[in-house]
Amino acid sequence: MATTKFSGVMPPVVVPDTDDRELDLVSFERSINRMIDAGVDGLFFLGSSGEVVFSTDKRRYEVIKEGIRIVDHRVPVFVGIIDTETDRVIEHGRVAQELGVDALVATAPFYALGGMCEVEEHFRILHEELDLPIFAYDIPVCVHTKLPWKLLAKLGAEGVLAGVKDSSGDDVSFRYLVQENEKLGHPLTLLTGHEIVVDGAYLGGADGSVPGLANVDPEGYVRQWKAAQAGDWAAVKAEQDKLNELSHIFDCTDGVQGYGAGVGAFKTALQLMGVFESNQMLRPVKALSGANVEAIRSVLVECGLL
Amino acid sequence: MATTKFSGVMPPVVVPDTDDRELDLVSFERSINRMIDAGVDGLFFLGSSGEVVFSTDKRRYEVIKEGIRIVDHRVPVFVGIIDTETDRVIEHGRVAQELGVDALVATAPFYALGGMCEVEEHFRILHEELDLPIFAYDIPVCVHTKLPWKLLAKLGAEGVLAGVKDSSGDDVSFRYLVQENEKLGHPLTLLTGHEIVVDGAYLGGADGSVPGLANVDPEGYVRQWKAAQAGDWAAVKAEQDKLNELSHIFDCTDGVQGYGAGVGAFKTALQLMGVFESNQMLRPVKALSGANVEAIRSVLVECGLL
Amino acid sequence: MATTKFSGVMPPVVVPDTDDRELDLVSFERSINRMIDAGVDGLFFLGSSGEVVFSTDKRRYEVIKEGIRIVDHRVPVFVGIIDTETDRVIEHGRVAQELGVDALVATAPFYALGGMCEVEEHFRILHEELDLPIFAYDIPVCVHTKLPWKLLAKLGAEGVLAGVKDSSGDDVSFRYLVQENEKLGHPLTLLTGHEIVVDGAYLGGADGSVPGLANVDPEGYVRQWKAAQAGDWAAVKAEQDKLNELSHIFDCTDGVQGYGAGVGAFKTALQLMGVFESNQMLRPVKALSGANVEAIRSVLVECGLL
Amino acid sequence: MATTKFSGVMPPVVVPDTDDRELDLVSFERSINRMIDAGVDGLFFLGSSGEVVFSTDKRRYEVIKEGIRIVDHRVPVFVGIIDTETDRVIEHGRVAQELGVDALVATAPFYALGGMCEVEEHFRILHEELDLPIFAYDIPVCVHTKLPWKLLAKLGAEGVLAGVKDSSGDDVSFRYLVQENEKLGHPLTLLTGHEIVVDGAYLGGADGSVPGLANVDPEGYVRQWKAAQAGDWAAVKAEQDKLNELSHIFDCTDGVQGYGAGVGAFKTALQLMGVFESNQMLRPVKALSGANVEAIRSVLVECGLL
Repeated sequence: MATTKFSGVMPPVVVPDTDDRELDLVSFERSINRMIDAGVDGLFFLGSSGEVVFSTDKRRYEVIKEGIRIVDHRVPVFVGIIDTETDRVIEHGRVAQELGVDALVATAPFYALGGMCEVEEHFRILHEELDLPIFAYDIPVCVHTKLPWKLLAKLGAEGVLAGVKDSSGDDVSFRYLVQENEKLGHPLTLLTGHEIVVDGAYLGGADGSVPGLANVDPEGYVRQWKAAQAGDWAAVKAEQDKLNELSHIFDCTDGVQGYGAGVGAFKTALQLMGVFESNQMLRPVKALSGANVEAIRSVLVECGLL
Repeated sequence: MATTKFSGVMPPVVVPDTDDRELDLVSFERSINRMIDAGVDGLFFLGSSGEVVFSTDKRRYEVIKEGIRIVDHRVPVFVGIIDTETDRVIEHGRVAQELGVDALVATAPFYALGGMCEVEEHFRILHEELDLPIFAYDIPVCVHTKLPWKLLAKLGAEGVLAGVKDSSGDDVSFRYLVQENEKLGHPLTLLTGHEIVVDGAYLGGADGSVPGLANVDPEGYVRQWKAAQAGDWAAVKAEQDKLNELSHIFDCTDGVQGYGAGVGAFKTALQLMGVFESNQMLRPVKALSGANVEAIRSVLVECGLL
Repeated sequence: MATTKFSGVMPPVVVPDTDDRELDLVSFERSINRMIDAGVDGLFFLGSSGEVVFSTDKRRYEVIKEGIRIVDHRVPVFVGIIDTETDRVIEHGRVAQELGVDALVATAPFYALGGMCEVEEHFRILHEELDLPIFAYDIPVCVHTKLPWKLLAKLGAEGVLAGVKDSSGDDVSFRYLVQENEKLGHPLTLLTGHEIVVDGAYLGGADGSVPGLANVDPEGYVRQWKAAQAGDWAAVKAEQDKLNELSHIFDCTDGVQGYGAGVGAFKTALQLMGVFESNQMLRPVKALSGANVEAIRSVLVECGLL
Repeated sequence: MATTKFSGVMPPVVVPDTDDRELDLVSFERSINRMIDAGVDGLFFLGSSGEVVFSTDKRRYEVIKEGIRIVDHRVPVFVGIIDTETDRVIEHGRVAQELGVDALVATAPFYALGGMCEVEEHFRILHEELDLPIFAYDIPVCVHTKLPWKLLAKLGAEGVLAGVKDSSGDDVSFRYLVQENEKLGHPLTLLTGHEIVVDGAYLGGADGSVPGLANVDPEGYVRQWKAAQAGDWAAVKAEQDKLNELSHIFDCTDGVQGYGAGVGAFKTALQLMGVFESNQMLRPVKALSGANVEAIRSVLVECGLL
């Protein structure tokens, strides 16, 4: 497990909205500071759980600008430049790098059908036209393309990619990538996005994690990472067990699914804990309410967070 | 089969690029005029085959503005306002309606996972915030959500949707939708996007078609539509047979797939026929070349178009 | 549209069970005779809706033997020899041909992952080792492999396959297959299994249909086929509209899905109409009951079948 | 990590065929003894990689009978009773239990579409009608149904299921299942089938593994399991790294896929190592040959197994 500039716990930042769906700066600052104070190693803005695809360009700009201001160089800042195809992604990348972020995170192209030629060309163009380290975001559940580990390793060895954020759900592929990356001299920083199985990913050699749940309990993930660095695997596993209990905020609700259930649960938990003012969601998703809020409250109480 | 303002043959306009990937206005005008002269009933800009997801906002603006200028009210103009989630889609819709288009075409939300609640809410918000007829674009192969015919019929009956462009590949669902729409008094204009089976769709009651292949052979699709209106089904079928021979420009190539093979074939055919100057594609897709161009030429020769 | 030995309306026979899940011979005979009297052109036993994968080998034997006895050469008999891989399929084929059926229907291999090499080899071995015409059953929703139309056409031209029963849901592919088959001299008999869009399939050139719904209303599908042969396409479409109203027995129920909703609706409708004694299903599927039965009764009443 | 009668390393036994596709008893005995001598904790016959769906009932009978004879009570014997629907599965189960096996392994129903009601009913009926411990085999890549961890935990708590063999590829779901099972008092024995990430699964609490690759290198997996029991996680990870190098026999070949590439590689490796006489495959799959055999030989040489 190498420690690079980008290793460790890098939460994807959940964005607080006012009831009118404006960026709630007070809550945003409170939540960011809370994570940095807990010891996270970096922050990832405008990831899938950071409302990136729900945000207009104006909103994306605001999130990056305010995020950077609040972070104030305390930890590295990643920014998702997620859009359908290459030229649109580059535009987001240029905005982000002018604002002074540390690394960019891009998915495979989506919406239009294509093949691996287009995927490879896409990342090569991003590398050529942008001046920051590029992380590939492997998230087939959203983009419907799985990035093959052999392609990722090749692009790492050539310096096209600086790292991978793996949300593929394919632990076999990730395990192969880690092992191949090691053989190549560890050019890539490899981060797992699967917050429920970080213990196994660390044992297998991941360089860090991008757990959405760290918005709710950053200290748990920080303790877990320190235990992993110390080789205390029983502790790594025990921390995971506790975090997984907390993760039932995702499946204790009824009648909601996908983003509304996942990010909706984060926002609701953060509101209940006094970090966010509101659990409002961007359109067309509705905020959790009623019995669903109470179910999340129960999980938080059981986990000692309320 | 009702004739509404939007019925008949409405090709999705393929956009010509210069070798430098700038909008080629001369070719654009030539191709649009060629389709209008052939008798098409409308034109659909910024559809999936119109490079919409490859185009920056600036490019989208340019395509709409120039398209409207060239069409000059000779036929109705549809514009695709395709983006990931509601607020981004609305921004595209506002631009398009300010430019003076006749109808807007929007898909289900994509990238973020959700359910039918979000899909329904999405179309309701579009209807509330925009002032033009909204067509739902049912294209699960790109957005990974199939729009249920019962939902579409309901939104049609309530006036939320003005029509559907069906590229779902689900002819059973479309057949049910046509039949239900008839019972409801035909509130929706129902267009099939499946250029290979337009004959069956017309027999089943479709109000028109959106065939990409009509960029290459607009006259064939226009003759077919007139035959359908005249009830000459043998002719409708015979026209389809001929058009399907031409459609082998999609599958005569090697080593390319998806958008590059489909829209790439349209652009290459139009270049070979002297309509486009170049068969350039937007990034990261590469233009067809070499043996693939020759294979397309052979199909055009066999079909009497060269 | 050629008329071959196997063209026309060939319903997949729904099998009646007693409440104890034994083959109900009296109902079986009544239903078969009802379809033959209505004028169907053939019968397909042990298709997907004929409980084939729910039936033990003993039960399969009984269905074929009794089916043949009852049909008594009045129409051709197809039998599904559906199982996971080649040698198991051949065993079913040998039993069926010894019992004296007219044609065999086999899917692509399923369960084990493979590629098109294995699919092609599978059909070639079946052709070599069995002595009856082989129909390929294209049903990706069950076997998770789509049979490519180019492969089917090639196997038809070589005499490996005698026909195709298309339940692929891919009307574009079927349209191409019909057209290619015509060019090759019509070696394959091409039957659509999509009972809701038979009108379009006939217009496009299908040789017949395999509609499960013909168990409930055989006369409608027979009238439709005769209208198609007479070139009366308006009548073909009108018959389809009526049959589709009846098909809402599939989607008027609640809390059931897949086979239980589809074949369960057939059995329930046939029981309500006095053709079957019971609507029992083979395990683990449960018979429809309560409000679901009443919903089906309402559809039958609206359609004038009760 | 509890140790039950069924915990530890339980390889799915790859079956050797003669060139004429008869069971090769000499090789079978050699391979089984080799695994038992290496210290495996049980053997699983007629799993997906044990040719189960390619085998006629006669062949299945022979494999079980000879397998039991050779094992001769040295380790517990699991048998896969894999077939499409309940009554067919029960028939296989009765044969196996009469032959004297220790546990039965069944998948969700497949081919016919259904829902979770049918899946649950299926396992309940198997438990009622069969007299041996039932393991659920979660293998959505073959049966296209993912078994939900909440359902599995419930069926474990009620005594319907004795364990789970997880080949779902969903490590998050498996991690939740392990944790829930622990809370319920560990009624289920939970085995991972993902041979590449056994290290993470053991750390997360799996009771054992079912690695196909243990046919080739049983000693590696046995050492890994012992290390896990001793809490030596660095050794667990290091063994996995070595085994994963060996696993490149799966992806060093060209032009083959799925079962032919996976089980084909096992058979070829075992032939090259002198354990199997032939690398023949059951129809319609072809044995690996030529450059593919040489590629596998290279991997074995690099890993020190040749």
